[in-house]
Amino acid sequence: MKKLLNDPNNCADELVDGLVEAYNGEVVKVGARSLARVDIPANKVALLVGGGSGHEPIYHGLVGRNLADGATCGDIFAAPPPDIVLDATKAVNRGNGVLYLYGNYAGDVLNFDMGAELAQDEGIEVRTVLIWDDVASAGPDQKDQRRGIAGLVPIVKLAGAASQVATSLDELERLTLKARDNTRSVGVALAPGSIPATGEPTFDLADDEIGIGMGIHGEKGVRNDKMMSADDLTAEMLSLIFADDLELNSGDEIIFFLNSLGSTTMMELMICMRKAREILDARGIKTYDIIMGPLVTCQEMAGISFSVTKLDDELKKLWDMPCESFCYSKMEG
Amino acid sequence: MKKLLNDPNNCADELVDGLVEAYNGEVVKVGARSLARVDIPANKVALLVGGGSGHEPIYHGLVGRNLADGATCGDIFAAPPPDIVLDATKAVNRGNGVLYLYGNYAGDVLNFDMGAELAQDEGIEVRTVLIWDDVASAGPDQKDQRRGIAGLVPIVKLAGAASQVATSLDELERLTLKARDNTRSVGVALAPGSIPATGEPTFDLADDEIGIGMGIHGEKGVRNDKMMSADDLTAEMLSLIFADDLELNSGDEIIFFLNSLGSTTMMELMICMRKAREILDARGIKTYDIIMGPLVTCQEMAGISFSVTKLDDELKKLWDMPCESFCYSKMEG
Repeated sequence: MKKLLNDPNNCADELVDGLVEAYNGEVVKVGARSLARVDIPANKVALLVGGGSGHEPIYHGLVGRNLADGATCGDIFAAPPPDIVLDATKAVNRGNGVLYLYGNYAGDVLNFDMGAELAQDEGIEVRTVLIWDDVASAGPDQKDQRRGIAGLVPIVKLAGAASQVATSLDELERLTLKARDNTRSVGVALAPGSIPATGEPTFDLADDEIGIGMGIHGEKGVRNDKMMSADDLTAEMLSLIFADDLELNSGDEIIFFLNSLGSTTMMELMICMRKAREILDARGIKTYDIIMGPLVTCQEMAGISFSVTKLDDELKKLWDMPCESFCYSKMEG
Repeated sequence: MKKLLNDPNNCADELVDGLVEAYNGEVVKVGARSLARVDIPANKVALLVGGGSGHEPIYHGLVGRNLADGATCGDIFAAPPPDIVLDATKAVNRGNGVLYLYGNYAGDVLNFDMGAELAQDEGIEVRTVLIWDDVASAGPDQKDQRRGIAGLVPIVKLAGAASQVATSLDELERLTLKARDNTRSVGVALAPGSIPATGEPTFDLADDEIGIGMGIHGEKGVRNDKMMSADDLTAEMLSLIFADDLELNSGDEIIFFLNSLGSTTMMELMICMRKAREILDARGIKTYDIIMGPLVTCQEMAGISFSVTKLDDELKKLWDMPCESFCYSKMEG
């Protein structure tokens, strides 16, 4: 695997520096490895995202107009330490509190919680919403054991819009919880990515096997299966989402997100979309909007995930707001 | 290489069908393998893009709001045949002519030209602007021998905006030529992609070698070189752009586009951006906006390209318009 790196042990710092440059004046680097928008309005309720690096364009690529106010970045596949979380919290705080929104991984929870304590010691109110959309990682009665995967993109989009209109941290938390609770995802691994510092694969998977429900770092899923066709896999993945506890009835409107985990191509996502439409149509489920692309990745990992976010009128208004970032952008409406 | 396919010989048809579904009612499928927006205004000067499939999200992912009105798609890595070009031309035509905008490859030129003749027989005025941004593919005195590569993204973005405001085919052609003539790109191949129908690599490249200036299908570039650091490669690639005939002086403003050819990660693009900023700053060149992502790909090919589009006040106004598609979206301003 040829990778365009300088010092393989310094990837996270260099990518954050490069991302700040790519934001072209819209964000500043804060502390060791955080970034914040330069134009956060006075009194805004702030939205902070973050997590391990190496999964670009998330999370730090979701800082942007009508999206997150800042991000705090860990080393490659590692949670951001508490002092880095604190740097970011102080940078985005405008006196009305900061909502932390990130994936439910033990290391992230530990470190963000410690960062929140440090921030509260300095008088900043912090709330946390954990993203746990992966239906394959635990049962619906154990949501707090579920991992956060690609559903984070529609959730952060909705939360970012909500943070523009919310007048209190309570309101932002309520809207973000609704977006989180209405989102379900399932992923499938076809091949591992690589660890930038060593070049080693992130996990092992036989040449003819795929990991149904496997997490983006290779965490255990539902089962391994033999490689199958795009249509069969699409049906299998959607059935796992439909079997979960989010009611999806005829006439319901959703955001449908087809994500590539890295090297799986847009062509393949498009081929899966064809079958997905047939299945959604048969159930009478309407797609309010569709996202498609390699947005939640693990280096050049092969595989895909599907995410479904069920909308109501309140969430639709938030969805309709335009947004812009390196991870996801849309026009109004 | 595990790929999510159904019939490996039917990828292009299935991906176009899936893309139309992903457009969620905004486009319709036309004829065998073309698509057109449903809301093209009466009398609009139309913009049609296209080319071989397998490079998604381009070209067909660039149909969208303030972007192309339609696209005509060939089979995998093959030009769209004339009858398919004609289908698309008729679908986007609103009586004021159609501009064809596509990459300068012999097969595409032959087939689009034949499609244009068929359209003209039916009374539709057609003009063509060929994209030839690849500085590594021929000298500056032989522009018509140059290939079209990733520079197509800023060029189509500008042409799409121009097509919203142009009142004649002459005007759209003039603005599109300006965008084209102000754009230069250079690519580097690290590893081949695969041919969907066979699984075979698209070209051969030694494990320790990279192809400087190599085209996205493996076409000959400037030279092969040993693998190098991100910083060294960034400097090498930018020097090839600066050595070309587009004047880039201190104070000039550009769109800078860092493209991944497929499996090269956003992390790596961000690491390259860090060095690119240093080099651009040293020359006093200002980035009006930056694009970054895997937008012009060849399956899971590894490698990157840089594109530079020099702006003047007229092009800046076009750039500032919002746009939306699966390939590229931005908010206003």
